[in-house]
Amino acid sequence: MTTRPETPLLDTVDTPADLRKLEKSQLRQLSDELRAEMIDAVGTTGGHLGSGLGVVELTAAIHYVFDTPTDKLVWDVGHQCYPHKILTGRRDRIRTLRQGGGLSGFTKRAESEYDPFGAAHSSTSISAALGFAMANKMQGRPGRGIAVIGDGAMSAGMAYEAMNNAEQAGNRLVVILNDNDMSIALPVGGLSAYLARMVSSSEYLGLRSMASKIARKMGRRVWGGLEKAEEYARGMVTGGTMFEELGFYYVGPIDGHNLDHLIPVLENVRDSEQGPVLIHVVTQKGKGYAPAENSADKYHGVAKFDVVTGEQKKSSGGPPAYQNVFGETLAKLANDDPRICAITAAMPSGTGVDKFAKAHPDKAFDVGIAEQHGVTFAAGLAAEGMRPFAAIYSTFLQRAYDQVVHDVAIQNLPVRFAIDRAGLVGADGCTHAGSFDITYLATLPNMVVMAAADEAELAHMTYTAAEYDDGPIAFRYPRGAGVGVEIPEKLEKLEIGKGRIVREGTKVAILSLGARLEEAKKAADQLEAKGLSTTVADMRFAKPLDTALIEKLMRSHEVVVTVEEGAIGGLGAHVLTFASDEGLTDADGSAGGLKVRTMRLPDIFQDQDDPAKQYDEAGLNAPQIVDTVLGALRHNSAGVEEARA
Amino acid sequence: MTTRPETPLLDTVDTPADLRKLEKSQLRQLSDELRAEMIDAVGTTGGHLGSGLGVVELTAAIHYVFDTPTDKLVWDVGHQCYPHKILTGRRDRIRTLRQGGGLSGFTKRAESEYDPFGAAHSSTSISAALGFAMANKMQGRPGRGIAVIGDGAMSAGMAYEAMNNAEQAGNRLVVILNDNDMSIALPVGGLSAYLARMVSSSEYLGLRSMASKIARKMGRRVWGGLEKAEEYARGMVTGGTMFEELGFYYVGPIDGHNLDHLIPVLENVRDSEQGPVLIHVVTQKGKGYAPAENSADKYHGVAKFDVVTGEQKKSSGGPPAYQNVFGETLAKLANDDPRICAITAAMPSGTGVDKFAKAHPDKAFDVGIAEQHGVTFAAGLAAEGMRPFAAIYSTFLQRAYDQVVHDVAIQNLPVRFAIDRAGLVGADGCTHAGSFDITYLATLPNMVVMAAADEAELAHMTYTAAEYDDGPIAFRYPRGAGVGVEIPEKLEKLEIGKGRIVREGTKVAILSLGARLEEAKKAADQLEAKGLSTTVADMRFAKPLDTALIEKLMRSHEVVVTVEEGAIGGLGAHVLTFASDEGLTDADGSAGGLKVRTMRLPDIFQDQDDPAKQYDEAGLNAPQIVDTVLGALRHNSAGVEEARA
Repeated sequence: MTTRPETPLLDTVDTPADLRKLEKSQLRQLSDELRAEMIDAVGTTGGHLGSGLGVVELTAAIHYVFDTPTDKLVWDVGHQCYPHKILTGRRDRIRTLRQGGGLSGFTKRAESEYDPFGAAHSSTSISAALGFAMANKMQGRPGRGIAVIGDGAMSAGMAYEAMNNAEQAGNRLVVILNDNDMSIALPVGGLSAYLARMVSSSEYLGLRSMASKIARKMGRRVWGGLEKAEEYARGMVTGGTMFEELGFYYVGPIDGHNLDHLIPVLENVRDSEQGPVLIHVVTQKGKGYAPAENSADKYHGVAKFDVVTGEQKKSSGGPPAYQNVFGETLAKLANDDPRICAITAAMPSGTGVDKFAKAHPDKAFDVGIAEQHGVTFAAGLAAEGMRPFAAIYSTFLQRAYDQVVHDVAIQNLPVRFAIDRAGLVGADGCTHAGSFDITYLATLPNMVVMAAADEAELAHMTYTAAEYDDGPIAFRYPRGAGVGVEIPEKLEKLEIGKGRIVREGTKVAILSLGARLEEAKKAADQLEAKGLSTTVADMRFAKPLDTALIEKLMRSHEVVVTVEEGAIGGLGAHVLTFASDEGLTDADGSAGGLKVRTMRLPDIFQDQDDPAKQYDEAGLNAPQIVDTVLGALRHNSAGVEEARA
Repeated sequence: MTTRPETPLLDTVDTPADLRKLEKSQLRQLSDELRAEMIDAVGTTGGHLGSGLGVVELTAAIHYVFDTPTDKLVWDVGHQCYPHKILTGRRDRIRTLRQGGGLSGFTKRAESEYDPFGAAHSSTSISAALGFAMANKMQGRPGRGIAVIGDGAMSAGMAYEAMNNAEQAGNRLVVILNDNDMSIALPVGGLSAYLARMVSSSEYLGLRSMASKIARKMGRRVWGGLEKAEEYARGMVTGGTMFEELGFYYVGPIDGHNLDHLIPVLENVRDSEQGPVLIHVVTQKGKGYAPAENSADKYHGVAKFDVVTGEQKKSSGGPPAYQNVFGETLAKLANDDPRICAITAAMPSGTGVDKFAKAHPDKAFDVGIAEQHGVTFAAGLAAEGMRPFAAIYSTFLQRAYDQVVHDVAIQNLPVRFAIDRAGLVGADGCTHAGSFDITYLATLPNMVVMAAADEAELAHMTYTAAEYDDGPIAFRYPRGAGVGVEIPEKLEKLEIGKGRIVREGTKVAILSLGARLEEAKKAADQLEAKGLSTTVADMRFAKPLDTALIEKLMRSHEVVVTVEEGAIGGLGAHVLTFASDEGLTDADGSAGGLKVRTMRLPDIFQDQDDPAKQYDEAGLNAPQIVDTVLGALRHNSAGVEEARA
C-alpha cells in the first residue's frame, strides 16, 4: 500500500457543518486534498473513479453553500458520490467501498442522513428531488430538493418527465446538470448535440453582463450581491432555451472546477425567490488525475490500481466474460445474416455490443439511457423483418417492462432479449442484481425465456434466438467470466422448450436453470457420496417448460429440487404450477411419495459482497442444495423433520 | 337505430388506393362523409369518439399523400384510429368495434396490413416508426415510418427518448404532432405550456414567406412547388426550437382541419430529402359534432349514444365504481391526515383522483403521461414524511416497474399503490387488462400486495394502506362497479398478511384473492349441493401470505384451490411455493391426501369482450371452479382422471 496522502485541512472536516466553518479561500486546498484522498481510497478498493473526480469541487461547493441535510441532495446514479461520502461522516470507512459489510458504491438511505435517496439506476434524481421539495412545501418547513444529474442521464425519458413537472416546486428545486459529455460511454442523440452546441458557442461574459442577465431573469433583489464584483464568478449565461421552455430558469454553462465561479452562482441560486433553476455545470470526468484524464473511459469503473502509475490490477486471464461471448457470437452470426442487428442502452462494452458494433457498425444502435425507446424501437425493427437483439442488463430491462409487454409480447414480435447480469452481481449490490427477470418475463404469454448454464450454452442460445422468428425470446446469463468450457465452432439450434439431462440418477433430481448448474453438479457428487443416486437436468427454458421431462423425473424420483438464480415466481413456481395442475404433487401417492422443493433467491435485497458469498447468503451453493435434498428426505409424514441420524 | 348517413363518395373507397384516385378537391366531401359515418358507427357501439373526430381530415390526407401500407403509419395510443379503419378495408365491420369477435378499439397488426404496429398505451409511436424507418433503410427498400402522436402523449419520457434518437432516420421518419391541447384530461406540464405558447404566439404567414422559410430549412429544390401559390396552404412556420434542438426539421403549426393546408405540406415533406420532420398540426378534439365539441371531455370515450341529440345511454345506477370508492375514501381520510396526497398519471377521473383533488387540490398531483416520474416523485414524497398514494392502472404501472423496484421497494419507502383495472377489463381488450401486477409486485422483497374482494374491502384497504408506514404497499381492484355491499362508516385497519374465512367447510377449500370471491362463493354453494362441504377464504394478501391460514386449511381439507384474477406467478405460485417448502404437498401422505390446484388467467392475451365472457374464456367463473374441484377429487392415484360417474 502506498503512503496515505497528506490532508491537513480535510482532517478537520467530518461533516458539512465543519466544512462551512472554512473560509471560501480554503476550499481550493480542501478540494485538492479531497481528490487525493479519493484517488488513494479507490486505488485500494476499486470502484467508480472518473465520475467522482469530476465533481470534487462541485461536491464541496454544494455542501458549503446549501444547508444539507435539511436541503436534500440527490446524486443521480450515485457513482460520483465518493467525495460526498468522504465529506459526510464516512471518511473512516471509505476504504471499505463496495466490499462485503462496507460502504455501498452508491448513495444509500441506510448509510447516512446525507443520502436522502438511494440511487444506482440513472435519471431518477429530478423526480426524487421534486418529491422532497413538494413534501417540504406542503408541510411548510424548510428543505430544498437538489438534483445533480449528468448529461448522459438527461437522455432518459424519466428525467424529461420530471423536468416537465418541475415548475410547481418554484425555488425549492435546484437541478445541477453536470455536463461532462460522457455517460459511461460517449453520449448519443439530439440532446447531447444540443448541449455540446451550447457549450461550444457560448462566450465568456463579463461579470456585469452576467449579473444583469441573471437579474433580468430572476429578479434583481436577490442578485444584487453580484455587484460586488470581486467576490463573484466570471460566468456565462447563454442558451438553455430547451430547459427554459420546460419551465426552468437556466444558468450556465459554468466551469465546474472553478470554485470562484461555482460558489457565488450557487449562493445566488440559494437566495433566489425564483425557480426552479437549472445550473449547467461543465466538468471533466477524471479531472486532476492524469491516468484517468488520459484514458478513453476516464476511469469510469476501475479495479484496484497503483496510485502513482494508474496501473490497474489485471484480472488473471481465465474464461471469457459472458458479455463478450455474446457480442462475438452475434458478430459472427451477422456475417451470414444481414437481418441481425443489436441495440444497447448506453452499455456498449458492458453488454458486448461493442464487439458486434466493431464488425457491423451500421447494424448497432446505442440509444443512450433509453431502455423504453430501445425495446419499442426493436419491436419496430422486428415488425419490418429484421432480427433485433436488445442487449440490456436484467435490472435495467425493468425500465422497459411495459414495452416488453405491450409492444413486444402482445404483438408476438420476434425481439431477442440478451439479458446480462442475471442473478447476483457482487460489488454493485442489490440495485444491479438481476433477480426478477425470470418471473416478470415468464408470466407473459408468447414469451420464451432461456437461461444459460455456461458460455457454450450462451453461444447456442444466441444462435437459437437468432433463428427463432415466432415471437419474443429472452436469454439470461450472469455477470463475469464463464466457467471455462469450450465454445464449439458449430452452434446448435436448441429445441424450444426442451431441457437436457446432464447426469442420470434414480432417487434425487435437481432441475437447474442457469449458471447454478455447476453447483448442482457438485451437489450431485456429494449426494452420490452419501449413496443418493442423483439426476441433474439443465432445464434451459423457464418458458415454455419442458413438461415431459418434468413429469418423467417426478414420476421416477423421490425428491425433485429446482434451482435458479432468481426470485420467487420463476422456474420453481412454474414447475410447481404445472405439477399441481397435473396432479403430480397430489398427496395421494399418485407419483409415489414425491417431494418437491424449490430453491431461489431469498426474499431480501442483498447487499454487495463477493458473489460466492452472496450465493452462500442466498442459499444457492452446493452445500445448501445438498441440505435441501436431505431435509426433504428426512421430512416425515407428521410434517416435521426427523432428527439427523 | 337511426338511418345510416348518405355517403356516396366514401362508398367508392375501400382502401387508400381508391382514395388516391380521387381529386384533391373531393377530399373535403370525403372527410365530411367519413365523419358522419364514424359518428353513426360509434353511436351504435360506443367507444372513443372525440379523438377520431379530430383527425378525420388528417387521416384522409395522410393516406392520400403517403404510400401506405409501404409507408408505415403508426397511430399513437390508437384510440383515434376509427377513421383510419374505415378507410383501410374495415368499414364493413366498423359497427363491431370493441365488441367480442369484432374490431379492436385500437390499431392491431392481426387486423390489417395498414396497422403495422398495435397501440393502446401512449407514446410508443415514434420509437416504433423509427424502427420501421431504420429497418427499411438497412434493407435498402422503400418505406417511411410515420408517427401521429398527441400533445399529451408527448409528455411521456418515452417519446422524448425516441426524438432524441430520431436524427439517424433522415427523411424516412415523419412525426406528426397532433396538438389538440388535450390528452384524456387537460394536459399538464412545461411541454404543454410550451406548445400553447407556440400556437398562440404564431402569426399566419403569407404563403411566400412560409415557402421561403421552409425552403431555407429543407432545401429549395423540393419546396419549389410552393411557388404555385394557389395550390398550397396558407400556413405558419414558427417556433419549434425544442424539436429542432433534438434534431428535427419543424414545420407548423398548421390547421389540421384545413385540407388545403394539410395536403401540400404533407406532399412537400414526402418529397423532401431532408429529415426527420416534425409537423405540428393543430386540431380540435370532437371536431364537427356539436355535442362532442361542447362537452368538457370532447366525448373522449362514450357509451352508445343518440346521434341526433348526442345523449349517451345512461348506466343503470347500481353500485359505485371501484375508482370512486377509492377516491372518495381517500378524500375522507385526508380530512384528518394532512400527510395524505395522491398522484395520477393523466387519469384523474379514471383513477378517482379527481374526487380527491376536489377536496384537497393542493395534495393532488397529475404528472401527465409520466408513470416513471410519478412513482419516483411519490418515493421522494414518502421519504420526506408524506403518505403518497400513486393511483395507476395495473397495466400502466408496468411503465414504472423499475421505479417500483429501484426507488420504492429497495429503499422500503411507504408509497401506496392504488392499482385500478386489475384483472380483465372488457372492451379495451388485452392491452388494458391488468394481468401481471400480482406476479411482478409479489416477487419483490419489502412489498405488500393486497387485492380487494369488493368495494367495502377496497375502502378498508385504502385505510390500511394509509396507516401502513413500514414500506411499500399495493392494493388492486377491478374496473367497473362494485358488487353492491355497504361501505361501513368506520373503516377497519386490516392486519397485514392475514386473510379471512368467509365460509367454513371441511372437505374443499377455495382460497380467493380479489373480486373472484363472488364466484368462489357461488361455486361453494354448488359444491355443497353436491355434498362437498366447502370453505371459502378471502386471502386479502398475496404478500405476505397468510401462511398459518394456508397450513391450517391444507391440513384439514382434501382439495385446496386458489383463484385469482392474474397470470401465473401470483397467489397460486406463492401458495404452492410455501406449501412445497414446508412439505405440505409432499406426496407421502403428510397432509392426508391433499390435492392443490391453482386457477389463474390463462397463458394468452385475451381479446375484448364482455367481462363475464372474458372470465368464462379465462376459466375463472363459478362453474369452472366447481369443475376444477371435481376434477381434483376424481384424479386417481394412477395420475389420470377417472371417468365421470
